[in-house]
Amino acid sequence: MRLIRFGSLGAERPGLLLPDGTRVDASAAAYDYDEAFFAGDGIARLRTWLEEGKAADAPRVDETVRLAPPVARPSKIICIGLNYHKHAQESKMAVPEEPVLFMKASSSLSGPFDPIILPRGSRKTDWEVELAVIIGRRAKYVSESEALDYVAGYSIMNDVSERAYQIERGGQWVKGKSCDTFSPLGPALVTPDEIADVHDLDMRLAVNGEEMQRSSTADMIFSVPVLVSYVSRFMTLLPGDILSTGTPEGVGLAMTPPRYLRVGYVVDLEIEQLGAMRQEAAPPWAPIGRPWNPEEAQPSS
Amino acid sequence: MRLIRFGSLGAERPGLLLPDGTRVDASAAAYDYDEAFFAGDGIARLRTWLEEGKAADAPRVDETVRLAPPVARPSKIICIGLNYHKHAQESKMAVPEEPVLFMKASSSLSGPFDPIILPRGSRKTDWEVELAVIIGRRAKYVSESEALDYVAGYSIMNDVSERAYQIERGGQWVKGKSCDTFSPLGPALVTPDEIADVHDLDMRLAVNGEEMQRSSTADMIFSVPVLVSYVSRFMTLLPGDILSTGTPEGVGLAMTPPRYLRVGYVVDLEIEQLGAMRQEAAPPWAPIGRPWNPEEAQPSS
Repeated sequence: MRLIRFGSLGAERPGLLLPDGTRVDASAAAYDYDEAFFAGDGIARLRTWLEEGKAADAPRVDETVRLAPPVARPSKIICIGLNYHKHAQESKMAVPEEPVLFMKASSSLSGPFDPIILPRGSRKTDWEVELAVIIGRRAKYVSESEALDYVAGYSIMNDVSERAYQIERGGQWVKGKSCDTFSPLGPALVTPDEIADVHDLDMRLAVNGEEMQRSSTADMIFSVPVLVSYVSRFMTLLPGDILSTGTPEGVGLAMTPPRYLRVGYVVDLEIEQLGAMRQEAAPPWAPIGRPWNPEEAQPSS
Repeated sequence: MRLIRFGSLGAERPGLLLPDGTRVDASAAAYDYDEAFFAGDGIARLRTWLEEGKAADAPRVDETVRLAPPVARPSKIICIGLNYHKHAQESKMAVPEEPVLFMKASSSLSGPFDPIILPRGSRKTDWEVELAVIIGRRAKYVSESEALDYVAGYSIMNDVSERAYQIERGGQWVKGKSCDTFSPLGPALVTPDEIADVHDLDMRLAVNGEEMQRSSTADMIFSVPVLVSYVSRFMTLLPGDILSTGTPEGVGLAMTPPRYLRVGYVVDLEIEQLGAMRQEAAPPWAPIGRPWNPEEAQPSS
């Protein structure tokens, strides 16, 4: 199944993307795709609803309707740093001996086609295409062999990063990772049965049509089960939590000279079998969660 | 007002601690002290309820009932590193030019008298008494002069930290800050009108009765309004979010030799006008959210 959420900011509803590309409203089967949904076996109930043919009678969702992140208010977003061999090389860092963890504020979560709003004074906002894992069950001290039982599905994450805030402002990375709209997620939560091999998916990211990142999840240093197991030793992963598994080579920071997003730049992201998403960089005063209109005057306040 | 939450883990209810020390159930005035409560002017409604004398008719809460953290499921816990002059000295670090931010997983939140559960293999679990700020209104690009308008109240936080996980395991501090029970918060959320000067509060922490930390919020490098304003430039603070403002000197890591918690050690924390709380260190297999009984056999699994 491909779970989507749709509707305007603050009024999102759960839906499904059907194999023929139709989007349907799944409000009859789920209140929302949040912690309670995943904890309460919501995916199984949704599958039953679908298999009983109920989706055929569900309201269609027009293609013009905004897609939201496919998970509502996760308790946390945990990210992995330096988890691709070639990205570690381009960063001139040694391959980590164990996974590098950091967090993004969940308030940074954003729809797959929402603009990326450049924060005030930002000059170094960068892109990172990543495979995101959505946790389906409370996970604590989970073994690697059992770890995939705790996965609800997969999405694409753009781990947007302001490099000056992340690296030059003192302290920990979270400062450059947590601005509003810095975690576009989507276009859908794809359940594991839809994916042949999660460790063999091509991935790419382009800026203004120019390919910046092209890799495969096969280049990951630590695999999905290793990561889920590892993180669960340091904290409890709750249903709906997002674990983003690191980015491959091709980030703007590592280029000579470095390249960053400017207002109007368009980022396209794609991971095989998971779909595609696109964000346009918008100025600090642009609204969250809806297309930015350059004709709108900058507010004076 | 002094807002408390009480009851067993997963079944907490909102309450109030009255000036005479009585605890009352405030379920008639609030569903819970969560994001929706703070966003919906819940504190003002609670105050009206109290001023109308309704607390006199509310059920009493017995002293034996567990106290929970006074805030339910905040979207995030943001912490400040190295924010006390003497703690920067003991850490042999320069005074930061701007605040150092890091995050703790909200799943680490714990009641003010709940045991601190030492994670498996932990040998360096340390204490940190801190003044915690609870955010009352959505805060983004807030000025320092307006910042206190965004504060719902204050609590004591024990920023429990596994130093090996934090420092010796690669990457960012979050790994040593986010284990379950690593963020005891309480005993109450104290509204600002109850506090004469939040920047002149004595604070202390003792382990097994031996004083380890004694300082005052007057030693802070960055004040509460500076911190709220600063953080709001890098992420949006949501109602109910917790901002913990750093610890003074006297952490176990900085001692010669370093000193850490062992099973059965008792940590007492106190901040003037905010109250006191106590946690006992428990083994990895102890249950969360209720007293640990050493007579209980370690589970074989």
